[in-house]
Amino acid sequence: YGKNTIKFLRLHKEGKKHFVKEVEVCAHLRLTSPQEYLEGNNSHVIPTDTIKNIVLVLAKKNGIPSLEQFAIDICNHFMTTFCQVAYVKTYVQEVPWQRLHEDGVPHIHSFICVPDGIRFCEAEQCRNGPLIVFAGIKDLKLMKTTQSGFEGFYKNEHTTLPERHDRILCGELFCKWSYGECKDFDFDCTWYKIRECILEAFAGPPDCGEYSPSYQKTVNSIQMLVLSRVSQVQVIEVVLNNTFYNVVDMKNLGLTNDKEVLVPVEAPYGSCACTLGRKKFFEA
Amino acid sequence: YGKNTIKFLRLHKEGKKHFVKEVEVCAHLRLTSPQEYLEGNNSHVIPTDTIKNIVLVLAKKNGIPSLEQFAIDICNHFMTTFCQVAYVKTYVQEVPWQRLHEDGVPHIHSFICVPDGIRFCEAEQCRNGPLIVFAGIKDLKLMKTTQSGFEGFYKNEHTTLPERHDRILCGELFCKWSYGECKDFDFDCTWYKIRECILEAFAGPPDCGEYSPSYQKTVNSIQMLVLSRVSQVQVIEVVLNNTFYNVVDMKNLGLTNDKEVLVPVEAPYGSCACTLGRKKFFEA
Amino acid sequence: YGKNTIKFLRLHKEGKKHFVKEVEVCAHLRLTSPQEYLEGNNSHVIPTDTIKNIVLVLAKKNGIPSLEQFAIDICNHFMTTFCQVAYVKTYVQEVPWQRLHEDGVPHIHSFICVPDGIRFCEAEQCRNGPLIVFAGIKDLKLMKTTQSGFEGFYKNEHTTLPERHDRILCGELFCKWSYGECKDFDFDCTWYKIRECILEAFAGPPDCGEYSPSYQKTVNSIQMLVLSRVSQVQVIEVVLNNTFYNVVDMKNLGLTNDKEVLVPVEAPYGSCACTLGRKKFFEA
Amino acid sequence: YGKNTIKFLRLHKEGKKHFVKEVEVCAHLRLTSPQEYLEGNNSHVIPTDTIKNIVLVLAKKNGIPSLEQFAIDICNHFMTTFCQVAYVKTYVQEVPWQRLHEDGVPHIHSFICVPDGIRFCEAEQCRNGPLIVFAGIKDLKLMKTTQSGFEGFYKNEHTTLPERHDRILCGELFCKWSYGECKDFDFDCTWYKIRECILEAFAGPPDCGEYSPSYQKTVNSIQMLVLSRVSQVQVIEVVLNNTFYNVVDMKNLGLTNDKEVLVPVEAPYGSCACTLGRKKFFEA
Repeated sequence: YGKNTIKFLRLHKEGKKHFVKEVEVCAHLRLTSPQEYLEGNNSHVIPTDTIKNIVLVLAKKNGIPSLEQFAIDICNHFMTTFCQVAYVKTYVQEVPWQRLHEDGVPHIHSFICVPDGIRFCEAEQCRNGPLIVFAGIKDLKLMKTTQSGFEGFYKNEHTTLPERHDRILCGELFCKWSYGECKDFDFDCTWYKIRECILEAFAGPPDCGEYSPSYQKTVNSIQMLVLSRVSQVQVIEVVLNNTFYNVVDMKNLGLTNDKEVLVPVEAPYGSCACTLGRKKFFEA
Repeated sequence: YGKNTIKFLRLHKEGKKHFVKEVEVCAHLRLTSPQEYLEGNNSHVIPTDTIKNIVLVLAKKNGIPSLEQFAIDICNHFMTTFCQVAYVKTYVQEVPWQRLHEDGVPHIHSFICVPDGIRFCEAEQCRNGPLIVFAGIKDLKLMKTTQSGFEGFYKNEHTTLPERHDRILCGELFCKWSYGECKDFDFDCTWYKIRECILEAFAGPPDCGEYSPSYQKTVNSIQMLVLSRVSQVQVIEVVLNNTFYNVVDMKNLGLTNDKEVLVPVEAPYGSCACTLGRKKFFEA
Repeated sequence: YGKNTIKFLRLHKEGKKHFVKEVEVCAHLRLTSPQEYLEGNNSHVIPTDTIKNIVLVLAKKNGIPSLEQFAIDICNHFMTTFCQVAYVKTYVQEVPWQRLHEDGVPHIHSFICVPDGIRFCEAEQCRNGPLIVFAGIKDLKLMKTTQSGFEGFYKNEHTTLPERHDRILCGELFCKWSYGECKDFDFDCTWYKIRECILEAFAGPPDCGEYSPSYQKTVNSIQMLVLSRVSQVQVIEVVLNNTFYNVVDMKNLGLTNDKEVLVPVEAPYGSCACTLGRKKFFEA
Repeated sequence: YGKNTIKFLRLHKEGKKHFVKEVEVCAHLRLTSPQEYLEGNNSHVIPTDTIKNIVLVLAKKNGIPSLEQFAIDICNHFMTTFCQVAYVKTYVQEVPWQRLHEDGVPHIHSFICVPDGIRFCEAEQCRNGPLIVFAGIKDLKLMKTTQSGFEGFYKNEHTTLPERHDRILCGELFCKWSYGECKDFDFDCTWYKIRECILEAFAGPPDCGEYSPSYQKTVNSIQMLVLSRVSQVQVIEVVLNNTFYNVVDMKNLGLTNDKEVLVPVEAPYGSCACTLGRKKFFEA
């Protein structure tokens, strides 16, 4: 197979007001025959340069109504135009430009980049198969300064970790979910609703939070809340890359440190991941 | 000289509400004698490990009232404690944790990382000299989709760039300013006020913007606005790393492209920088 | 599942001569029951900290005879020690320290880091299944300045790429192959033999090279040579991330440029990948 | 001032043998008047695009005989062509392509990237001032597994570091030296000679090494050896970014660890730097 990445900016105006979408598109094709690999016969190969042109032409003609719709448009174009394509997957990721505000007033053409979680989506299709749409968020860094512990774990002669009932829970989230074949709903609105679920499940109620007995349970809470609140989601995968913080031992500096000063521990660096769907109940 | 970097998190509570500051501190020392270099005599050397301990102990004892005050505290500690120190500079940079909100309600102990411009500061002092405080913002990515051009530049036989009166202006800003010796004011409040000035000078009025004839002029507008609005600022340095966008030529694809689809140009990659003070009018 | 990364250095001496291996180990476990996710029951969870201790203890006791043997040792330890482990995969990557030489004389304890392709391996096992060993090389950057073209590809109205019979072929290679279950041979020697095959298939004979009609065919040539020369290899996957170079058009600067000055094209950025085994002939 | 970066590849042939240089050039200009900043008057501004064209044209016409000569050529061009230029600095950095060898036979057109220290140079000139040439190496990672200690340092109540007489010395070197105004010698040959001095001073004799009492003393040894062996070098600056390794305490795992298993310590991360010249003896 082959894939390639194109980065571009799509600008459109409504009156004097400007709207901007900057995206990175990655198209991934597999052809019906591997003759270019085995025989050096290029007659079915669609050059990277042509793929780039097609993506830019589609952006020019259709705009980018939503990341997901744009990914679907590209998939459809390749499947209907090129009979030598056996499989196509398109990945679209957004540069998080947000409109600038001055004293609460939105600016008509100025933007600031705010990378507090990057939105992406995927559409994929095998010839004669259904078109499946995925969406997700990545690089979302979250922290809880309390209401997190890790106790009752398996112990043997290699165990040195003490049990903790009040630690920092901090990590970088990757979430990706599938909408299955359904594709006629408001992708933007649904994405923001899911983002809210993720934050709510991570943090718990604003006045008291909710105790997390492990990174794993927090991963599961996020999945359960999204599945229960957003009916369009079929399957949801969550990966949580943990950053551990150690309370600095200040005894030999003559001080007590009651979880006031902590240092990030760069190794071991862990992550936990889980994929949860509606029918088959667990899969990893 | 020697320097070293320490990253840590300072947590404090007011009732049940948690407050978190995660910072990276870089301390830079120069000793009065270079004997450890020339003779391998370590008797005056303050180990990196000791510097780390001092920074953590100060954070534990004083907290981090503001980045600037913390940088000043560290400088003062080294100057008053170690007579072998000839010069000290401390750099403090913040991890941009923001309190999470659920439906507008602030969460008591959950935070999200929002890197839309990183706040930093510096304090430096030579023995017997004044303590100077700097503050700044870096990695601030901004874009104007119109009200920017570049015309009337110098031309010769190596010129191929066309004149443009409606281009994209996009870049990553680094701004650093000095407060001189004055140090008894609200550093947090002043920093946010300067950030507002930067955004306003970059973007212009929200309903129409302001035409920028060059990256250089935009740099100067930022400096002039900050100096005019914030009396504590003595000198301000601005570096703007430009990202250029080219309108894609779609003629041979049978389409006209009226600044709707643009691609970022990764080379040549330029930047312009200027330092502007109150008395001596120009310096670069 | 959960995984985590540990970086460490293993030093050993033979007489006065020092030998150093610095590795990054990533262990990936899946337990028989997901109860820690679903119920917050941690009683089967093996903490990241314990995994780190086990890896360090094995390195202390056994040393790192080869990356592959060390990965096998870790797999075996987890499978035989923890009955709650359903699946284990270990990834081991080497920091490319090489012994320093002075006028051809090897230094007994000094090393230089030479990252011209990073060696890695994997071992994986399901409970009651065979232990499978993989090895590979990544971040290997190669260039041919001639004997490469791209012609006869598929064309339609979105094609703008001209045919080329003398272009630069440049890219970053990732190769990963499986040794199947066989594990009693000299892993180090075999790895170096495969590296030689990769370089030879990429470059062709030293006096004239060999024409490559596409990145895809070069990928296939590498696979075919490795499979034909090294009988232990069962399946080989190759990914080639392409860097394209354009000959700079200097006509409007009054010069002809006969492939003398070229600029790298950062977008579109492509890659091609293929997996080739012994029996089932093609798979991607 | 303004600066910008251009990356390109210069290819030339001698018979059937190909020679390749890929470089990154950064040109930094300051104009005599800041009118483009203050008044938005662009009439003296040399666009980034023009600078790129000039660099590419010089590469086409002159080739890149050495990095240093190319940097000098660019400086000279700007100073003699543009009377509005008050100051020019050019930085040239090499992509470390090395010719591939098969069984010891050099390949006529295939190359591998070997980043074991990156070569760079600078040329700078003020109008009516001398042209000064610098050269250097960066990202050079070296390690000594013994013959290094750190003892007799300053101690007070914040000291927790134990004295060590047999530790790992590991770091990333940056060295930059000036050739002053002299410019008629073999830059390539001199650069390789200096690289050898750096390695020799770092490592000591191949059969026994040489004890280093501190990172600082190793920095000084490098400077002293270069200045004593290479008469063209006027001033040499060395920065050594330290990576510390801790011997893992395995007592509570029931094992003794005699400097066999060590982990890198990511914080505190230190560096030491020194600039040494011929006449004025110390400056930092």
